[in-house]
Amino acid sequence: MSAPAPAPSPDGASSPARTAARATARARTAAPELAALSLPARAELLRALARTLGENARHLADVAENETRLGAERLRGEIRRTQTQLRMFADIVEAGAFLDVMIDPPDPAAEPAPRPDIRRMLVPLGPVAVFSASNFPFAFSVLGGDTASALAAGCPVVVKAHEGHPGLSDLSHELAAAVLPAGALTVVHGRETGRALVTDPDIRAVGFTGSTSGGRALFDLAGSRPDPIPFYGELGSLNPVVVTPGACAERGADIVSEYIASVTLSQGQFCTKPGLLFLPAGHGLEGQLRRAIAAVPPGPLLGAWIGTAYHATLGQLVAHPAVHAMHLTPRQDDPRASAPALLTTTAEAVRAHPDLLRECFGPASLVVTYTSTDDLLDTLHTLPGGLTATIHGQEPQDGTLARRLSAALSAGRLIWNGWPTGVAVTPAMHHGGPWPSTTSPLHTSVGGTAVARWMRPVAYQNMPEALLPEPLRRMNPWNVPQRVNGGSEGR
Amino acid sequence: MSAPAPAPSPDGASSPARTAARATARARTAAPELAALSLPARAELLRALARTLGENARHLADVAENETRLGAERLRGEIRRTQTQLRMFADIVEAGAFLDVMIDPPDPAAEPAPRPDIRRMLVPLGPVAVFSASNFPFAFSVLGGDTASALAAGCPVVVKAHEGHPGLSDLSHELAAAVLPAGALTVVHGRETGRALVTDPDIRAVGFTGSTSGGRALFDLAGSRPDPIPFYGELGSLNPVVVTPGACAERGADIVSEYIASVTLSQGQFCTKPGLLFLPAGHGLEGQLRRAIAAVPPGPLLGAWIGTAYHATLGQLVAHPAVHAMHLTPRQDDPRASAPALLTTTAEAVRAHPDLLRECFGPASLVVTYTSTDDLLDTLHTLPGGLTATIHGQEPQDGTLARRLSAALSAGRLIWNGWPTGVAVTPAMHHGGPWPSTTSPLHTSVGGTAVARWMRPVAYQNMPEALLPEPLRRMNPWNVPQRVNGGSEGR
Repeated sequence: MSAPAPAPSPDGASSPARTAARATARARTAAPELAALSLPARAELLRALARTLGENARHLADVAENETRLGAERLRGEIRRTQTQLRMFADIVEAGAFLDVMIDPPDPAAEPAPRPDIRRMLVPLGPVAVFSASNFPFAFSVLGGDTASALAAGCPVVVKAHEGHPGLSDLSHELAAAVLPAGALTVVHGRETGRALVTDPDIRAVGFTGSTSGGRALFDLAGSRPDPIPFYGELGSLNPVVVTPGACAERGADIVSEYIASVTLSQGQFCTKPGLLFLPAGHGLEGQLRRAIAAVPPGPLLGAWIGTAYHATLGQLVAHPAVHAMHLTPRQDDPRASAPALLTTTAEAVRAHPDLLRECFGPASLVVTYTSTDDLLDTLHTLPGGLTATIHGQEPQDGTLARRLSAALSAGRLIWNGWPTGVAVTPAMHHGGPWPSTTSPLHTSVGGTAVARWMRPVAYQNMPEALLPEPLRRMNPWNVPQRVNGGSEGR
Repeated sequence: MSAPAPAPSPDGASSPARTAARATARARTAAPELAALSLPARAELLRALARTLGENARHLADVAENETRLGAERLRGEIRRTQTQLRMFADIVEAGAFLDVMIDPPDPAAEPAPRPDIRRMLVPLGPVAVFSASNFPFAFSVLGGDTASALAAGCPVVVKAHEGHPGLSDLSHELAAAVLPAGALTVVHGRETGRALVTDPDIRAVGFTGSTSGGRALFDLAGSRPDPIPFYGELGSLNPVVVTPGACAERGADIVSEYIASVTLSQGQFCTKPGLLFLPAGHGLEGQLRRAIAAVPPGPLLGAWIGTAYHATLGQLVAHPAVHAMHLTPRQDDPRASAPALLTTTAEAVRAHPDLLRECFGPASLVVTYTSTDDLLDTLHTLPGGLTATIHGQEPQDGTLARRLSAALSAGRLIWNGWPTGVAVTPAMHHGGPWPSTTSPLHTSVGGTAVARWMRPVAYQNMPEALLPEPLRRMNPWNVPQRVNGGSEGR
């Protein structure tokens, strides 16, 4: 999705580059202090942020509702989710395994040469920039997962606030500033200031959640620096849902109504919104599908810019000769109103027209009918990489088919008989995937391993005990897991 | 270092792009078979490669010596090191921890929503390209660490052979082909074919060891793809060595002679060759330094192209007004002959002239004198990121100074009272570092975690036991470490 162009700077003194440089200078100053905190002290910062979110939840939700129109219940739930995230990273920091400590004692008999003492751990990269998302004003914004994981890593953060909720961003920052060390978190506004952050010499990595086009532009900018830096972009995803003939026959009506609920949850404004539903030809569920989508009333979108982009993409799909509209909600006068829509086509047409495989951010999706297992698999092989892919099947009858479907689907999360919306915040969660769903398939923006994006390994060779960082010492004063000679963890 | 331009293709049928496409098509076909191997079967492939290297060591060393002139003893040692590498990755594959399995059981009481069953592991990225290095015809070439770690990950490899040892590359490939599944390893030649590999749609990641300029060009190419892919380049490094006043006074003569031995080992053709020696002003070791470097005879370089690049860079440094030559070996008629050299300047001059901070690949280095701790630290803060940094100090007297030096040095490996050349092949080794020493500071090309470059996480949500990959099953048939709820490892 695209955001409006920022207002021009009133004068040179507040040019985007200077605004960015002031913010990153604060972060640079804070970096050594943050990196030097003990693990319990670092965890306590994250818990303090969770507490302040809870203490101010009512006010935060009001400000957020005024800017985003996501609804009070959803917003209060998102605040709780964001608290859960912060506490999860606090637990991860205290457990210490995220430092990935590995110790290889010296070995005078090693081949082809004697081995020195090698002790390795992860250290923070330094100040990082985070671009927050419009659709999660808490969980992927100023105090969201990118910020929480970066602080957990020991990195100061400069957040580029989303234009969709500037007031909430400032309020979140104000509350955070009261509990964090100076410079640990700064918020800036404006697209050009965001671009200046990406090229600022003090910034060592960037996290981004948003559109594929916007993310690609910033990814290219990060890669074009004299000193390229890691850019972790979570971009668009089609999130296909495949229903086997067996599942369709057994519980097609339930699947269809749950599918439409997932598509239209929060007006379809999720990166995990299912955009493709594969059903066997002759599924006989047209009536169910039409009734379910028609029953969803239009609702407020995050902003008029979302409505504009939604109707532009939807219009192109509707006009496509290979696509038939099953249901279109008439467009409202309010440019911020959603218009749920359901389209259909065939697997053969998807293979012939790859331009059908585009994300339509909002409450629209495409039902794709397949005539055979080969027709289905051939089409799944043409899908771009995604954050998620879902299979609805029967167990154990569909075992062989399900294995072939799993192998054909290129995604970061594979879901069985469920729905991709509602990403669980747990240590093992992976929220990432092959291009174009992210710029970096090795990494995740949700889950415990999100912290690894902001750290780099350092090996210490024959370093005396007193000069080693605490986690690498023989005495292990912080009691962190230490893997010896590549073996299992111990303490 | 630059390599000669390749000969033009004789006809369209063997254009670089077609040669690359044929190789990657073989790799694509092999990918599912390789990914599906059990861990013991995958480990056995790596051990078979180590065996075939040992069984053919004499012949391999002869062919390598003819092409590289590195000397029989060094080459036999490098073959043993390469066997050690392959066996280390075999052990890592069998242990299973590299799959980074994490399991979060369902939790109906979780806030803000019930948690599903989430099981996460790493899976192979698919076919990868590896650009081999000139200076390690075994350890960083066809069967070197990049290939070994990618096969360990389950990824087929297409190696772009280095122009410096094409015959050895073909022989290595021939021996490997006899023990690997078809398509698991392919070797191609020629710079343009290498570029075509980087943009080939089937290639999912690239490993590279070589010059900063060459690596940067390929990094930019990988990032410019319609679907950008990870590019792991190990580039140049200055590898500073800092000697404290205490260490200089106590054992300056020994340090100097060991330093010159490290600089000139294998004619200085190591990415870890120390290029900067920081000594306190008035160190009184000029005579020792001059005698040590003058005693090193010229030797054969890897090729005439190394000699050309060496003399070009050395000439620019010698001509610099802030630099004084301590010793210059007269240039030989043989363009492939080395000419050991030692230059000197001051810390203040290094700060004033950042162009002095350039790698000179070969047996040359720069002695930098400092007048105070601040003079030293201010200068260390200006150094680019490196693979290594070394401190020679006295313990415990230098404790405070050593901590400040450690904090000022930006490198992937910090060495105490030792030398950076001779990278130990152990699970915890980190051979990487901040730009410009690598394109990706999170990763390493030596050590057990090198395998992580070729894998991406996948999370399975509520997947039935029978449909889960073996490492994620409750029964754990492969007996791999499974971390539950973010806790410590168990089996």
